[in-house]
Amino acid sequence: MTDQAKMQTATAIIVRNEAFLAEADRLKPELREKAVRPGQLVQVEEDSTAVHGYRSRPVADAAELEERSFGRGESFILDFGDHRVGYLSFAIRTVGSPPDAPLKVKLTFGEMPVEVAVPFETYDGWISSAWLQEETLFVDVMPHRVELPRRYSFRYVKVEVLATSQKYAVSFHDFACRTVTSADSGQLTPLQHADPVLEQLDRISIRTLEDCMQDVFEDGPKRDRRLWLGDLRLQALANYETFNQNELVKRCLYLFAGVPDEKGRVSANLFIQPTVIADDTYLFDYSLFFAASLYDYFAATNDRQTLRELWPTAYRQVELALERVDETGIVRDDETWWSFIDWHDQLNKQAPSQGVLLYTLKRAVLLAEAVGEPSIAAQLTETIAALTAATLRELWDAEQQFFVSGALRQVSWAGQVWLALAEILPPADNRDLLLRLQAANPEVGMTTPYMVHHFVEALLIAGCKEEAIAQMKAYWGEMAQDGADTFWELYDPNDKSFSPYGSPLINSYCHAWSCTPTYLIRRYGL
Amino acid sequence: MTDQAKMQTATAIIVRNEAFLAEADRLKPELREKAVRPGQLVQVEEDSTAVHGYRSRPVADAAELEERSFGRGESFILDFGDHRVGYLSFAIRTVGSPPDAPLKVKLTFGEMPVEVAVPFETYDGWISSAWLQEETLFVDVMPHRVELPRRYSFRYVKVEVLATSQKYAVSFHDFACRTVTSADSGQLTPLQHADPVLEQLDRISIRTLEDCMQDVFEDGPKRDRRLWLGDLRLQALANYETFNQNELVKRCLYLFAGVPDEKGRVSANLFIQPTVIADDTYLFDYSLFFAASLYDYFAATNDRQTLRELWPTAYRQVELALERVDETGIVRDDETWWSFIDWHDQLNKQAPSQGVLLYTLKRAVLLAEAVGEPSIAAQLTETIAALTAATLRELWDAEQQFFVSGALRQVSWAGQVWLALAEILPPADNRDLLLRLQAANPEVGMTTPYMVHHFVEALLIAGCKEEAIAQMKAYWGEMAQDGADTFWELYDPNDKSFSPYGSPLINSYCHAWSCTPTYLIRRYGL
Repeated sequence: MTDQAKMQTATAIIVRNEAFLAEADRLKPELREKAVRPGQLVQVEEDSTAVHGYRSRPVADAAELEERSFGRGESFILDFGDHRVGYLSFAIRTVGSPPDAPLKVKLTFGEMPVEVAVPFETYDGWISSAWLQEETLFVDVMPHRVELPRRYSFRYVKVEVLATSQKYAVSFHDFACRTVTSADSGQLTPLQHADPVLEQLDRISIRTLEDCMQDVFEDGPKRDRRLWLGDLRLQALANYETFNQNELVKRCLYLFAGVPDEKGRVSANLFIQPTVIADDTYLFDYSLFFAASLYDYFAATNDRQTLRELWPTAYRQVELALERVDETGIVRDDETWWSFIDWHDQLNKQAPSQGVLLYTLKRAVLLAEAVGEPSIAAQLTETIAALTAATLRELWDAEQQFFVSGALRQVSWAGQVWLALAEILPPADNRDLLLRLQAANPEVGMTTPYMVHHFVEALLIAGCKEEAIAQMKAYWGEMAQDGADTFWELYDPNDKSFSPYGSPLINSYCHAWSCTPTYLIRRYGL
Repeated sequence: MTDQAKMQTATAIIVRNEAFLAEADRLKPELREKAVRPGQLVQVEEDSTAVHGYRSRPVADAAELEERSFGRGESFILDFGDHRVGYLSFAIRTVGSPPDAPLKVKLTFGEMPVEVAVPFETYDGWISSAWLQEETLFVDVMPHRVELPRRYSFRYVKVEVLATSQKYAVSFHDFACRTVTSADSGQLTPLQHADPVLEQLDRISIRTLEDCMQDVFEDGPKRDRRLWLGDLRLQALANYETFNQNELVKRCLYLFAGVPDEKGRVSANLFIQPTVIADDTYLFDYSLFFAASLYDYFAATNDRQTLRELWPTAYRQVELALERVDETGIVRDDETWWSFIDWHDQLNKQAPSQGVLLYTLKRAVLLAEAVGEPSIAAQLTETIAALTAATLRELWDAEQQFFVSGALRQVSWAGQVWLALAEILPPADNRDLLLRLQAANPEVGMTTPYMVHHFVEALLIAGCKEEAIAQMKAYWGEMAQDGADTFWELYDPNDKSFSPYGSPLINSYCHAWSCTPTYLIRRYGL
């Protein structure tokens, strides 16, 4: 996810836990590298039936590039065949007289065809245009091998010769992407599934996860290239079912626990370079997910030492969240955007946040027991009972048969989903709630794969396996049909050009929070 | 000078003389470095009285930069106080939240205010826009020290913040230019002169020469950064009167002699990187200047060994030039542009080229004698007599009292100047010719400092010291008044926005062939 919109002007004092940070450092993974060469030269053409309006069409084998030369104003597009994360290099030689002026060449990287078709200059969205992946290079001496120092996330590379001279042209050869990931595909058991669509969704999920697994679990290798707690939680779940590289999860948990603020609160996300820095964004739900993620980690690994070390941090998030519960037993709703839940301007966050709190409290009880804190477990169990009663009393609308949220008693998808995941209704009632939700389809819907994941998992917990599979196919399946090499940050089947940022150019097309079909399929035996 | 317009489609075979190239390599100078910091923050404003329409105005001490921060769309211009050639570095830190997006920043370098005022996108001239000095950088991790790997030639640097994010701004500090030159100003005797204008011209000439003295004598550190024979000859003359770094001249002569074509012809210019490459441009006058330059070198150094080694190359240029002399004793005029002389579309090259040939022949005789080739000396002396007679017979127009050139019998400045420098008329007649030239002012005039140099030297040889000084003041003096920190490649006092390239943005404002006032002042004791 991305932080600008949920900016919170905090001047937090960070209390570094050097032992935790040293442990995180010790767990830093080695990156695995692979040289990947482009397969095709392509043209990208307007096509109103394609998502974002552009489609690529192969025009020649990439090997033919070497035979061609390019003068001022000429360009070509290479297709690396699949989504790639890594470092680009290529060689340039000159054709004609000795080069009597520098070469000026522009590179544009695209995860999607639209990015190499629509000029970045047209972008006018609210998040930084610096995320748009491009470079303008001057080469003074040729022949020359260009080794770009920045990492890119792409399938397509457009190369435009902006200037040579009247006396020479240039020829390009030996394009290669040195891909990087900390994922070890050797650890992977391929899924053999009778349903080819589920097999496809599993494969694309894993590619998405793989390309996001770097020094840390990144949210997206194009944007924001950062460790977010909400994304980490889902990546970790997918990882336990696939790569099973649990030390990377452990590293990320230690990083978050290493830079809390003076109240002990963990940040929504961390910067890893130049040193570990907690962002000044704190989110009600994301902080709680530290505890939920520790629960998942312990369930996957039974690593008691880590549990013991990180339990105080996890418990502290719960304590801080409970401070937001008012005298009626419901999390306080106010003007500041303190909980993420989903990318939706109209969404009231109260009911879904109450759901996240209850969801986490139930896992915290189990952690308290595992860590040998029976009195805390007992106290949390009492809190759960009180909050459950309060939720049913304050938020359940018996007439509408939905949970409502905020002063305006909003009925949203997110509210029902999170209170279903909190499992405060009997299982049969949860099932009815979710089916009723689908039937009623309230206006305040879901906008991200992240939110759709939670809906599908709620269906599965409530035993609605068929509906869950149908929802996955309707969502990730259609995304795959629409050309996703890796799963996209944002996708609305009813509004395929949706971007909360003002332009699809800036969307991330390989995004951690979208990688969960592999988890859902494998964990729930779909 | 610049080569595109005098392109000649030759497919020359280069015969490398490895011994000469090894000697040139041995003579490679060490570059002297100096850290220079900017003095002022300036604004550049339109001013119709300024050359090219812009003037800079100091607005703050550069030290104040550190206190300021810059968001998207904000910019500033630094003034490094004088013309600089070198490598720029600076540091960036962020202000506000941790940087949650890369920084995109654009740098534009200007030798003149116009370059940091008029967007380079407007340039539409015929030589490569890649010479326009700019960089667009993305910085992923901050704080960061930027060390730009390319060398720039500039006084002004404009810094534009193209993108940050909504959460942070940037602050810049510690700008420095690591200047480079192979000139050793410790070797310099400052000129004490009663005339402050001549003192100023001497100083600016030396700054120009210094900034062009790198691995080789470059024509211009902004453009073309290359070793041209025509420029070398004048730089060497200025060098003998100032830095006296004669090994650099020797190195350049060995480089030219190291890569002749299969006929033994030396190229008009060399590329030094990635290896020594002779450009495929061959010019009648420039090739002859190899011999003239060797003469000047020997006169300055009395280095007989170099003379012995390079004499065959020098003599070969004379032989090849004489092959162009037709049965009437005049160099053949034809459609190909085989002689440079000056940047002038209308200029017929026959008469001035005949002048260059005679000028060189007279020096070749002296070299032949010095090298112990009396029979060659005698033969060349005969040739000079024959060509002199032919020139007076075929090119002298007794009615107009001017030399004429080509089938259309053009009367040009360049024709009179070069035939005056050839000294084929008695001294008094040469003097009258030049004064008559000034009075008549034929339409085909002089367009470059390079050509004006030859006019001034012709005046001095003819004894017109007062006129020579007046001409220098009217030309280089006015250039200095117009703000030249170093002398410009191109200057026409009657048309100050003149550029043969289609835009003053691409002109070079520190150009070797303009550095001769110091030579003229010191050599002729002005």
